[in-house]
Amino acid sequence: MPLRHPQLTPDGRLRHLLTIEGLPPEIIHRILDTAATFVGVSDREVKKVPLMRGKSVFNLFFENSTRTRTTFEIAAKRLSADVVNLNVSTSSTAKGESLLDTIDNLSAMDADMFVVRHGTSGAPYLIAQHLDRTRGSEVHVINAGDGRHAHPTQGLLDMYTIRHFKKDFRNLTVAVVGDILHSRVARSGIHALTTLGVPEVRAIGPLTLLPDGLEQMGVRVFTDMRAGLRGVDAILMLRLQSERMRGALLPSAQEYFKHYGLTSEKLALAKPDAIVMHPGPMNRGVEIESAVADGPQSVILDQVRFGIAVRMAVMSLLAGHG
Amino acid sequence: MPLRHPQLTPDGRLRHLLTIEGLPPEIIHRILDTAATFVGVSDREVKKVPLMRGKSVFNLFFENSTRTRTTFEIAAKRLSADVVNLNVSTSSTAKGESLLDTIDNLSAMDADMFVVRHGTSGAPYLIAQHLDRTRGSEVHVINAGDGRHAHPTQGLLDMYTIRHFKKDFRNLTVAVVGDILHSRVARSGIHALTTLGVPEVRAIGPLTLLPDGLEQMGVRVFTDMRAGLRGVDAILMLRLQSERMRGALLPSAQEYFKHYGLTSEKLALAKPDAIVMHPGPMNRGVEIESAVADGPQSVILDQVRFGIAVRMAVMSLLAGHG
Amino acid sequence: MPLRHPQLTPDGRLRHLLTIEGLPPEIIHRILDTAATFVGVSDREVKKVPLMRGKSVFNLFFENSTRTRTTFEIAAKRLSADVVNLNVSTSSTAKGESLLDTIDNLSAMDADMFVVRHGTSGAPYLIAQHLDRTRGSEVHVINAGDGRHAHPTQGLLDMYTIRHFKKDFRNLTVAVVGDILHSRVARSGIHALTTLGVPEVRAIGPLTLLPDGLEQMGVRVFTDMRAGLRGVDAILMLRLQSERMRGALLPSAQEYFKHYGLTSEKLALAKPDAIVMHPGPMNRGVEIESAVADGPQSVILDQVRFGIAVRMAVMSLLAGHG
Repeated sequence: MPLRHPQLTPDGRLRHLLTIEGLPPEIIHRILDTAATFVGVSDREVKKVPLMRGKSVFNLFFENSTRTRTTFEIAAKRLSADVVNLNVSTSSTAKGESLLDTIDNLSAMDADMFVVRHGTSGAPYLIAQHLDRTRGSEVHVINAGDGRHAHPTQGLLDMYTIRHFKKDFRNLTVAVVGDILHSRVARSGIHALTTLGVPEVRAIGPLTLLPDGLEQMGVRVFTDMRAGLRGVDAILMLRLQSERMRGALLPSAQEYFKHYGLTSEKLALAKPDAIVMHPGPMNRGVEIESAVADGPQSVILDQVRFGIAVRMAVMSLLAGHG
Repeated sequence: MPLRHPQLTPDGRLRHLLTIEGLPPEIIHRILDTAATFVGVSDREVKKVPLMRGKSVFNLFFENSTRTRTTFEIAAKRLSADVVNLNVSTSSTAKGESLLDTIDNLSAMDADMFVVRHGTSGAPYLIAQHLDRTRGSEVHVINAGDGRHAHPTQGLLDMYTIRHFKKDFRNLTVAVVGDILHSRVARSGIHALTTLGVPEVRAIGPLTLLPDGLEQMGVRVFTDMRAGLRGVDAILMLRLQSERMRGALLPSAQEYFKHYGLTSEKLALAKPDAIVMHPGPMNRGVEIESAVADGPQSVILDQVRFGIAVRMAVMSLLAGHG
Repeated sequence: MPLRHPQLTPDGRLRHLLTIEGLPPEIIHRILDTAATFVGVSDREVKKVPLMRGKSVFNLFFENSTRTRTTFEIAAKRLSADVVNLNVSTSSTAKGESLLDTIDNLSAMDADMFVVRHGTSGAPYLIAQHLDRTRGSEVHVINAGDGRHAHPTQGLLDMYTIRHFKKDFRNLTVAVVGDILHSRVARSGIHALTTLGVPEVRAIGPLTLLPDGLEQMGVRVFTDMRAGLRGVDAILMLRLQSERMRGALLPSAQEYFKHYGLTSEKLALAKPDAIVMHPGPMNRGVEIESAVADGPQSVILDQVRFGIAVRMAVMSLLAGHG
């Protein structure tokens, strides 16, 4: 198993989903194709398929996120799995137990899958490696967001949304806008876009919120939002975390909105059929104007809907179906 | 759709359950009749019916209430629905997201039903109207208590209990006792009683805890509990919230109990077969004497049991069954 | 029903599981035999049996314990029961409701089983007696840990583990090591060992953490760990609660580890095939050395795995199966 692909089996199938970085495009397309079959399930009278009946999925959230936890819980239940929610910040780790002891313990309860959210970058890797060593290929890990590192299911649902509306990635210009420095959504999105062959990926934000090394990733950097939006097919807005504001990286919410908030007027610079995306929760009037968030080009709620199907796809592929 | 009945479809069926005010008596009777069929389900070896298999019910509690949340969770699970519990006070709204953005987001996960508890009167209306506008008739809302306004499933289970023990509403005298001013239970109960044709509804409490306008609702007001209880068939005791005590609306718990606590001695003034009800949780020795709470005329635990069946009935009717 | 066996029916079957004290050895063996049939269920593709379909299990935790709650939740779900988790510390009791009113209320929702964790010794007894009086033999109680008193499913899973590895109890020497004074795990373990006919049970710990009366229970007491471990077949390490340290009953964690921590060197005094057990969560470097916790004689994770099967066994026996 090559060091750079700890999430793949030796024969190239998905063992864990830890990051989009280094994921072969065929696997991403496989996930998106599988997700497409599940979009229909949610429209049925009985929104359930028996693919994971009798499997135990543990939602292991070391960082609180009701919204993300809910999407995985819904996805697992629609696959007929048994779901156990563990808010671990208040649990054993508080009693001084180590992370891997907690994992060993839960995995001894015959877990089939861990959905892990953790404040520290790399924690899901550590867990996946440990499980590979101790449990072989039996237990699967999905990264539901780790520190500033990755949020791969968000990246995948963004790709599903773009593919749904734009069909082909290979002639698109896509802009990612906002606090790219601190955003695992941005990292996962940019990796997915470049992997899928999007010819022009742009990063737009204030200098203080742009990380080094974007150019090396093939990304064009803009500090002027108007210039950056010109002619784009899709816009991925990022959430501005209010703690950044307090951290003095930004002058004020009003100032930020003026320069980097997506308004109808700025949106008019993009292609007329450009789509607007946002991972939620939105700060209306800070990173996005309400008229845009609720406007005809917004596909923000489609993202949520597709997100359930994408998570069902990842889970069922990891569980060996498809 | 007439303005006064946002919870009914144009052809008069239940689309949401928001309040008992303005609900036609036939619909109330329909719910009670349906509930009667579910009372038996809970006595079976397998306490489940498949009426909502594959449906997603979101318990959306902006105000913490383990007890009420549990009754809805149990009811939904006995209908075979998938239930997701969301304690929203600690979630996205804390991140600055608006209420309706939260709703849009969850509803994009293909929710079939929201059970909403909210500290602000009218919040479930707002949510229902928004969903009607955005999702058509697909998604249903049940008000599980909003501010001081309404708690319709409590009102309905109270009616179920009265009908169970008294058969006919049309020759009863019913007294509601306690903090009527702040009680959504009282409001929902009084609306239900008048709608169902109870000829004499009485409100008993200290002047400071009686709202204006009771007489216009056809309610006889008593500040003397002994006078008010004389000859009644059913007594709905209300919970006294301790915060009222601190708010100086009341002298003390002892004083309150002396005047408005239900004792065996006061109960003797009612009809010999009068039933005693309480929505729980009880403050024994404050609003009710233990001898009464645990006595032969108490039907408090029947209320809880019928409450599950009533909630199953409301859910299954909203889901289109029956 | 004899006073000393409130957990047995008049004809000697298990009605509740409250403590191992006084439990006939046949019942313990019956539970262990039943558990053996469930160990296989967790290895299956579909880890579920329909024995408790449509039954409602309430996890009623007055004391927070995510880990223990999870084991019961998993066990109940694998038996196809509906599970409701209630963290009661933040719920109605905070509103002044009495423990038994809470129980009455939940039991009126047609609960079939309560799994109770409570900080006060005897609380599950009180609940079981109350339910016997009010609900007859319909509702079952499992003690998931009460104060310093008992933790019977932990004791049973410890016995399952010993039986699995040592086959016969009747020629073993077993040592329980650590804070025996405050440990419900120790109490339940010692009762189980003596009931099952283990000829030599040893208690090892500092004088301040050894309760009176051990000798009367047939236990040999050692304050010297090296002497106590000599020739034993199984070692039950106990968790050292850090609050004890603050309570000045102990000098320091380092000091404790030096005298009562299980190291490879001390373990070498036991039989070469002695097994090492710990109820978790472990304080590595305080009560146990990592080399031992992760070493070949450690069966700590087997305990967790068997724990699910043992809890499934207890639940299904109480529900009338087997």
